[in-house]
Amino acid sequence: MAEYSRQQKAAHQLRLLSEALDSGRLGPVKRLVNTLSTAEIGNLLESLPPGKRSIVWGLVDAEDDGEVLLHVGDEVRESLIAEMDQDEIVAAAESLDLDDLAELMEDLPDQVIDEVLKSMDRENRERLEQVLSYPEDTAGRLMNPDVITVRADVTVDVVLRYLRLRGEMPEHTDHLFVVSRRHQYLGRISLTALLLSEPGRPINQMLDTDEQPAIPVTATAAEVASQFEDHDWISAPVVDENNILLGRITIDDVVDIIREQAEHQALSAAGLDEDEDMFSPVPRAARRRMVWLGVNLATAFLAASVVGRFEDTIEKVVALAVLMPIVAGMGGNAGTQVLALMVRGLALGQVGASNAKVLLWKEVRVALLNGLALGALLAGVVWLWFDDIALSLVIYAALIMNLLFASLAGVLVPLTLRRLGFDPALASGIFLTTVTDVMGFFVFLGLGSLILLH
Amino acid sequence: MAEYSRQQKAAHQLRLLSEALDSGRLGPVKRLVNTLSTAEIGNLLESLPPGKRSIVWGLVDAEDDGEVLLHVGDEVRESLIAEMDQDEIVAAAESLDLDDLAELMEDLPDQVIDEVLKSMDRENRERLEQVLSYPEDTAGRLMNPDVITVRADVTVDVVLRYLRLRGEMPEHTDHLFVVSRRHQYLGRISLTALLLSEPGRPINQMLDTDEQPAIPVTATAAEVASQFEDHDWISAPVVDENNILLGRITIDDVVDIIREQAEHQALSAAGLDEDEDMFSPVPRAARRRMVWLGVNLATAFLAASVVGRFEDTIEKVVALAVLMPIVAGMGGNAGTQVLALMVRGLALGQVGASNAKVLLWKEVRVALLNGLALGALLAGVVWLWFDDIALSLVIYAALIMNLLFASLAGVLVPLTLRRLGFDPALASGIFLTTVTDVMGFFVFLGLGSLILLH
Repeated sequence: MAEYSRQQKAAHQLRLLSEALDSGRLGPVKRLVNTLSTAEIGNLLESLPPGKRSIVWGLVDAEDDGEVLLHVGDEVRESLIAEMDQDEIVAAAESLDLDDLAELMEDLPDQVIDEVLKSMDRENRERLEQVLSYPEDTAGRLMNPDVITVRADVTVDVVLRYLRLRGEMPEHTDHLFVVSRRHQYLGRISLTALLLSEPGRPINQMLDTDEQPAIPVTATAAEVASQFEDHDWISAPVVDENNILLGRITIDDVVDIIREQAEHQALSAAGLDEDEDMFSPVPRAARRRMVWLGVNLATAFLAASVVGRFEDTIEKVVALAVLMPIVAGMGGNAGTQVLALMVRGLALGQVGASNAKVLLWKEVRVALLNGLALGALLAGVVWLWFDDIALSLVIYAALIMNLLFASLAGVLVPLTLRRLGFDPALASGIFLTTVTDVMGFFVFLGLGSLILLH
Repeated sequence: MAEYSRQQKAAHQLRLLSEALDSGRLGPVKRLVNTLSTAEIGNLLESLPPGKRSIVWGLVDAEDDGEVLLHVGDEVRESLIAEMDQDEIVAAAESLDLDDLAELMEDLPDQVIDEVLKSMDRENRERLEQVLSYPEDTAGRLMNPDVITVRADVTVDVVLRYLRLRGEMPEHTDHLFVVSRRHQYLGRISLTALLLSEPGRPINQMLDTDEQPAIPVTATAAEVASQFEDHDWISAPVVDENNILLGRITIDDVVDIIREQAEHQALSAAGLDEDEDMFSPVPRAARRRMVWLGVNLATAFLAASVVGRFEDTIEKVVALAVLMPIVAGMGGNAGTQVLALMVRGLALGQVGASNAKVLLWKEVRVALLNGLALGALLAGVVWLWFDDIALSLVIYAALIMNLLFASLAGVLVPLTLRRLGFDPALASGIFLTTVTDVMGFFVFLGLGSLILLH
């Protein structure tokens, strides 16, 4: 429910814009677009089909180009960059902070990268190269090397004078970092503390160390996000293995990470990439989805081959063919519920060897209860439909058994995938439904052969 | 991949703790627990089965109780509160900020609420009652009324003196809010600006108004979150319809909203509530899932009744029964992919009437391409398996048609649900698979009857 108004606002912008575009009056479109924040422009560009997208992109203020590029998925970003000439790309890149620039660099043509590097002064170039030397999705890539540092042996008024002399501060500066002569991280002081303290107070008496451990430059993006969430940070220092201060990560990057994780989990369950453009070209979209559907086709053949073993039985009791999708489908649905809880638990680190057994035992009992209750309903309807009590008992037993298999698979498949080093959000669903289809068909048709044919 | 280390860290804590609990030595458990942040303790409690959970809960420092309760889901929270006596609950409640206390209030017994209100001074009680008067999931409920305000007609040094006199500032104070005599919101000044400005500079020359519109007290949580995301805010003012400043929302609450939205989307697709306790009692868990499985059972009957219409056909060509789950299942998988993209697009406001047609046309073409390619593969295997060219042509045509139905349903089902006022994340999956099952069986068995029986 709560999503409506956001949706309404963005959809409203989209409608206004589409109407203006359709009418061909580009003046109002340009004015509308440039009242939006760069994040909103990014969102809007993602909602436009290629033709309109490139018209609107041409109308965005050049000075916003860089920021907008940061706010769209990889695939849309590529399509936007492809429409810019080299000078425009260089100008957009130059407008960005170092950490944002680093994020953009991967998608730029080599020639443009050279141009951008050439246009920077030596200090910034070296900093950028340092950031780019760390692997993607690590603290090193996320950090901004542009930080305000102070020494521990000065007093508050010295720091205040230094800040006034320096002028502007980087965005989201809530703390200054205190470093040693060798640039080792010693602790932080909040702007609040600076504002509230006596001018003569020495900085080393105000250090705030134990509350905020520094983030190692090798920490993963997910680690960074969970640290920020656990401690309600606005910004945090990043250090190397010798505790040398390298840069700073801010909450706005963390919010982006959390959004991406969420989209990854939602889309990878359907075998999709979170960077997919809604309007990506048909052949490309088809090719990507084909891989996933191909894997599903292979598992469907496996399930069909199980049914194939019971051709004789089905020929004699056609009702089994009519009812078998129910048994398989109910197993799939029940297993998916267990799986959804497990995938969340694994992502939050709430599921491990120490509680897996308890969880499994709980889910088995839930499955048994549901099997008994829903199975009775199913058996009743089948009895009325086919007037065959043996058939209704067969489907009752088969449903209970398949729900038990589903609960086992729901718990064990994601645990096993995780142990083998795979992403449980991505592949669990396929394995789970393979189990519930194969076992559903096997148990139902097997029981049917045993009981109904004799 | 990136999730591993978070998982590893939390799982490591969980293992250590479980071992210590199993050994019965509570001293080390207590020490371990109280080195964690309140968010980590919450996460840990959620991962423990009821017995261990209540032991660990008893060992948490009383002063952290309130914060920990905020960091667990509703269901776990109820179970924790049920184990506290009244004095403990009152003490926990008193340790919280007003906005956090408001969040907790809903879950407290009436008697405890009275106690808590009695223990507060009049000003805070009135503020709390004001916060509680707004509906859940709105800015009014999320805001903290404890804000620092200054007047526009003073100078920087007056503000600085006032701040030193006042002492501490509320957490995450990055801006002060400037108000009129009647407490109307006029704008904000950053702490950074205060630090960098000349002492004699008047506040009204430093006002930062256009960058930050105030949030209306009636805005939904989702709106608040998207505003913060779009503008990279740390904190934002909340005003009523007369522009009177009521309170302030901070980024840490927004991060929680985003997490909840993400969990809602991931779990509601499986018919689950994001506040479900992994270890909730078996009867309760079974009852809740039964509703969802019951709905699925009804749709499964619908699909089975379609198959039932073709009993005669299946009796003559049993291969149709063997292969029909492939056609239905492939449709379900392809449709789920479209659906996942649509649900994301709707949540972000990227899909509306103005681009739905373009999307539909794109998805139809993707379905056609995949149907042609994967259908050829499927037809080839079926030909080899059953040595029946007519059967393989029937399944080829049926697959293409069902993938087309799947793409239509994938686009239209969530749009229709949204238009009717339902949450597309919750119910789309059931409708979609009903379409793909029913149409898959109907088209395949129907074509089979027409072509193979004559």
